[in-house]
Amino acid sequence: VPIAHIKSAKKPILFPALLLALQAVFIVLLGVNAEYGQEPVTTTHTAHLTSTLRSTITYSNGTVVQIHHEEPAAHRGITDFYAMFQDIHVMIFIGFGFLMTFLKRYGFSAVGFNFLVAAFVLEWALIVRGYMFDYDVKTNSFPIDVERIIVADFVAASVLISFGAVLGKTNPTQLIIMAFIEVLLQSANEFLGLRRFCAFDIGESMFVHVFGAYFGLAVAYMLYDQELTSTEASEREKSVYHSDLFSMIGTIFLFCFWPSFNAGVAASGDPRLRAIVNTYISIASSVLLTYICSCLFNKDRKFDMVHIQNATLAGGVAVGTVADKIIRPFGAMIIGSVAGGLSTIGFHFIKSKLQKFRAHDTCGVNNLHGMPGLLAGIFGIVLAFFPTISLHTDNLLDTCWHGENRSHLAQVCYQAATLLVTVGIAIVGGIITGAILRLSILNDERPSSYHNDHVHWETPDDFYQDAHALLFPSHVEEHI
Amino acid sequence: VPIAHIKSAKKPILFPALLLALQAVFIVLLGVNAEYGQEPVTTTHTAHLTSTLRSTITYSNGTVVQIHHEEPAAHRGITDFYAMFQDIHVMIFIGFGFLMTFLKRYGFSAVGFNFLVAAFVLEWALIVRGYMFDYDVKTNSFPIDVERIIVADFVAASVLISFGAVLGKTNPTQLIIMAFIEVLLQSANEFLGLRRFCAFDIGESMFVHVFGAYFGLAVAYMLYDQELTSTEASEREKSVYHSDLFSMIGTIFLFCFWPSFNAGVAASGDPRLRAIVNTYISIASSVLLTYICSCLFNKDRKFDMVHIQNATLAGGVAVGTVADKIIRPFGAMIIGSVAGGLSTIGFHFIKSKLQKFRAHDTCGVNNLHGMPGLLAGIFGIVLAFFPTISLHTDNLLDTCWHGENRSHLAQVCYQAATLLVTVGIAIVGGIITGAILRLSILNDERPSSYHNDHVHWETPDDFYQDAHALLFPSHVEEHI
Amino acid sequence: VPIAHIKSAKKPILFPALLLALQAVFIVLLGVNAEYGQEPVTTTHTAHLTSTLRSTITYSNGTVVQIHHEEPAAHRGITDFYAMFQDIHVMIFIGFGFLMTFLKRYGFSAVGFNFLVAAFVLEWALIVRGYMFDYDVKTNSFPIDVERIIVADFVAASVLISFGAVLGKTNPTQLIIMAFIEVLLQSANEFLGLRRFCAFDIGESMFVHVFGAYFGLAVAYMLYDQELTSTEASEREKSVYHSDLFSMIGTIFLFCFWPSFNAGVAASGDPRLRAIVNTYISIASSVLLTYICSCLFNKDRKFDMVHIQNATLAGGVAVGTVADKIIRPFGAMIIGSVAGGLSTIGFHFIKSKLQKFRAHDTCGVNNLHGMPGLLAGIFGIVLAFFPTISLHTDNLLDTCWHGENRSHLAQVCYQAATLLVTVGIAIVGGIITGAILRLSILNDERPSSYHNDHVHWETPDDFYQDAHALLFPSHVEEHI
Repeated sequence: VPIAHIKSAKKPILFPALLLALQAVFIVLLGVNAEYGQEPVTTTHTAHLTSTLRSTITYSNGTVVQIHHEEPAAHRGITDFYAMFQDIHVMIFIGFGFLMTFLKRYGFSAVGFNFLVAAFVLEWALIVRGYMFDYDVKTNSFPIDVERIIVADFVAASVLISFGAVLGKTNPTQLIIMAFIEVLLQSANEFLGLRRFCAFDIGESMFVHVFGAYFGLAVAYMLYDQELTSTEASEREKSVYHSDLFSMIGTIFLFCFWPSFNAGVAASGDPRLRAIVNTYISIASSVLLTYICSCLFNKDRKFDMVHIQNATLAGGVAVGTVADKIIRPFGAMIIGSVAGGLSTIGFHFIKSKLQKFRAHDTCGVNNLHGMPGLLAGIFGIVLAFFPTISLHTDNLLDTCWHGENRSHLAQVCYQAATLLVTVGIAIVGGIITGAILRLSILNDERPSSYHNDHVHWETPDDFYQDAHALLFPSHVEEHI
Repeated sequence: VPIAHIKSAKKPILFPALLLALQAVFIVLLGVNAEYGQEPVTTTHTAHLTSTLRSTITYSNGTVVQIHHEEPAAHRGITDFYAMFQDIHVMIFIGFGFLMTFLKRYGFSAVGFNFLVAAFVLEWALIVRGYMFDYDVKTNSFPIDVERIIVADFVAASVLISFGAVLGKTNPTQLIIMAFIEVLLQSANEFLGLRRFCAFDIGESMFVHVFGAYFGLAVAYMLYDQELTSTEASEREKSVYHSDLFSMIGTIFLFCFWPSFNAGVAASGDPRLRAIVNTYISIASSVLLTYICSCLFNKDRKFDMVHIQNATLAGGVAVGTVADKIIRPFGAMIIGSVAGGLSTIGFHFIKSKLQKFRAHDTCGVNNLHGMPGLLAGIFGIVLAFFPTISLHTDNLLDTCWHGENRSHLAQVCYQAATLLVTVGIAIVGGIITGAILRLSILNDERPSSYHNDHVHWETPDDFYQDAHALLFPSHVEEHI
Repeated sequence: VPIAHIKSAKKPILFPALLLALQAVFIVLLGVNAEYGQEPVTTTHTAHLTSTLRSTITYSNGTVVQIHHEEPAAHRGITDFYAMFQDIHVMIFIGFGFLMTFLKRYGFSAVGFNFLVAAFVLEWALIVRGYMFDYDVKTNSFPIDVERIIVADFVAASVLISFGAVLGKTNPTQLIIMAFIEVLLQSANEFLGLRRFCAFDIGESMFVHVFGAYFGLAVAYMLYDQELTSTEASEREKSVYHSDLFSMIGTIFLFCFWPSFNAGVAASGDPRLRAIVNTYISIASSVLLTYICSCLFNKDRKFDMVHIQNATLAGGVAVGTVADKIIRPFGAMIIGSVAGGLSTIGFHFIKSKLQKFRAHDTCGVNNLHGMPGLLAGIFGIVLAFFPTISLHTDNLLDTCWHGENRSHLAQVCYQAATLLVTVGIAIVGGIITGAILRLSILNDERPSSYHNDHVHWETPDDFYQDAHALLFPSHVEEHI
């Protein structure tokens, strides 16, 4: 009995050739224009202060003199960013990587291609962001520091969310090309949103989660193939007991470190504290609502691992846009609860419906990142109506359209515009990207037998043995 | 052949109904009384100083003026707490969660219910602690900041230790009710111990470990059922090769981050350094003594995974009460060594004896948390005799009985009283809680077939297949 | 059919006796000479500054006075070191531990002996380093603080690399003796390199990676036995599907936290930022080159898990020596790319060749640590020719040979000397150690049936069941 139908493949020489060429280009670009950033030379903590740091000198004769430090640090350094950077780094590589290992025969690819794509995006995003956001014409260079490597990780998150939508349906060459294009579009969209529309979105729920999800879904739509519904492909789209446990490693690390994701680049001091506390509360609430809904929706009142692995995290996404705002703890709890419920509804009711419209969403990114991200964007729009809560002027720069003193109603419009433009660019960009990935030169290199590590990896002996039993479990059960 | 005896169950509508109601109550309580804490506006580092920060101004004419900062920060913020908070957070969700995945057929429940219970406790503990410890009658509110979310994680640890004692023997409704009650009792006991008895216990060995262990054991005692000793239940109480490896993920993360647990809320500066160094040394020593004892106790001189997964960590518990004291590195090493040995003795000799007295302790929490926690309490009593080592007055507040200047002998008595009262409240509270959990409305909702994920979860196909082989291994071996 | 050939063994009473005796000695040594270090009492951030911290006082009448803080902190504390310490700690225990779980039947020993050896080394290294580097004759003591426990973790890394070379071929007694000797030699070599030769090697690529790899290879050479090539031993030297996924947990954590390893003890400020950025870029590049080479070298153009688990990390090693130097981002990318390619070449072409010369390298440490470490040393030598990039005088102390003002050409010589002496001491020390480990009193205690957990551990039932199927897969396939 054959393990799986494997179409004859060309030797994939395109993959190493393409990647090697890109590496060479990156080295040149870094060599020409990339420099180190600078660690702040004044005390790092002065950056914390919204008000000026004040101290007093007390002379022995009783005179008291008020002093203040000059030049508060223009930027922040390792002390401020590094611990949260490492949390986010673990989310990208362990969190996303292991979250996707739930498929019984696609664990190598899940964690391995996650590793490949993320490492590629880190490099490419440093360069694209450098030119787009930070290029200094005086020095002909852009800097790389801890804040920039956090941002590169954010871009990676966006691409990995798209990867979740096409998991098991693409070869590595397609993934690299998808990542190459997505970094450009995601960064351009974020530049527009942050520097022109000046929307607030501290946890990147729109720029990363919404963009990644709908870009990925559009690609998946374009790559849809009837073979996905075959018995063998469907059988391989299931989990086994231990693959579900591997997946939980990803889930739990994402849960634990989500406060760092949403607070990573937040302004020091109270805004950052709020981002931490709101995310902590919101994501805990979405865990509870997921358990509630998972139980309610199941006919035997059992929990479904797919929900627990994914929907539990929706509170982190949904609170992202407003995480540093004064939404108060109970607001965070309401947001998390709504998100947890909505996400479980998505997994249970909406995912299969979408598939009928050729949007096959392997990891359910619409439910974990898409809809909760839209929710986050909507919360942002609503909050912009209340300037004492949204403090929207804190985000405004002189590069913003309608200047640094726009009204809160203008902010409402720009929040909405950002959400709409993000969805628009994601979907259009994804469709175009998907069309490119369908080109036979890319698609035939190593045609996928869906959700099957064997196509891409040297596999150990038990892959074959177990494969037989796992793919035809009823057959085995008969004999017991 | 049936996998396991499964009693007919009512549809567990109570679980979602109860949890949804509690979420609603929590939202109201947070809405009425919870506010964000404040990040310190003066420099965070001044909180480090035991002496006042001194700087000098040098005038050009040579005059030197001594200056000092006014108002050293009354509390500490993200810079001080956040990195350790994340370590502790990982201990709670990855550490405890995966530590309990050792059972061959209960991995989903171990990590999944750990996730559910911990998320629930975080919310509930923020509220209970807020009212009990931090309520400000002037503002009618309690604050939430990074130190408070660390403390909520500590409370979660206590409940998860109790969960370890009843692992595989409860349904989720029972777990939520147990957690609801335990948070109240644990917090009340800690309030008494910290604010009235003013015992020192920086690593919460008494308040968290002793309380959690004996509360859980008392609940397990009340829930004891003869069926636990059935062949099938006993067979499912074993591990498989890979479930033991999943469990080691939990063990190692607990090991690595234990210094953060014991130093998390320690006073900045030297006390915190001592808490880190002492825990680092103590827990390393308990690893070595566990290997020594595990080898010695085994008839084939082989190591036992149960010991390595658990007893290795006893040094972290046993040093907890005195972690920030001047016990010197060799003292930490002695404490860790004793604890590692004692804990292995507990697993090898005492656990099975306790079971004869109806105290079925699935994870052996008596050995990892109970006895080493008692040891910690005793070390605390002994240390209080030596005020130059224990520095006991550093902990005293004006809310303490016998005031801020109590003698060291008074401190000895209060340390002893704290330990006794903790054990007392834990056992009495656990018995009452266990009696409630036996009520048929809770117990019949989804009667447990012990240590069996299938009762609570949708399980993948290989759960059935392997279940047959795993439950009847001798049968299989015959055929080889 | 027997699982494996197991030679009759003496009861290993030597292991617990030896380890217990060593613990007792360590307690005495710590008791006599170890004290806590001190947390800095002035502001921790002043240690960041290369220039003096300057503030001004502005009087109401307009006078401006320049002030500066007195006594910049002589050393750094928790704020500077702790978060990176925890990253490194996770690398040692989770990273190395799980990386080695790839063998199908040796997972318990991989993660368990890693735990045992690392915990042992932490204690022993604190003591050895204390006497060698930090002993103060005035106080008759050496201090233990966060920087010292980081360094103890570095020593553990070195021993665990050696463990990787002998994985599956030693009993725990041999491992403890190997660790005991290696700590002494590794520390002595590093003392010579840092305090006399004054070589720069911020990421310890020479002192830890090169030393550990060639010491381990020399031990493996001495322990070589024909039985290693038997069918059964070879069969057990393979992986299974899930053991490869466990191994990836180790790989990814090592990848994520490598910047902390290379920047852990770097000077605060810009040098530390460079160490972070360079490592981040270099290790990402080695990931990509590993995927490229793994694909190119494989006849079916498939990826090989062994490469992905290991060679991806070579960029972290290769950039170690020069990580804090001004090599610019493109330099880091070139280094990482070369290392990733070289390491994959090592795994694919060189490893099997070495085995013919009796150097059986279970984990391929020559490819991940040895050759990339040599590369790092060579980059260091080359860089020393350019004093504006290497800033070599920053490392010079008055204990250095040729003083604090040596020329850059002298530095070139000392970098080369350090590399050569490191390789020399490692190989000679490893051969002597291997000869000791062959002594029948150590080797016969529990003679190894290679790569087999069953020799050292109580194993669950499925170890036997699966063992049959896994060891004779073709036999099983016949029946399907």
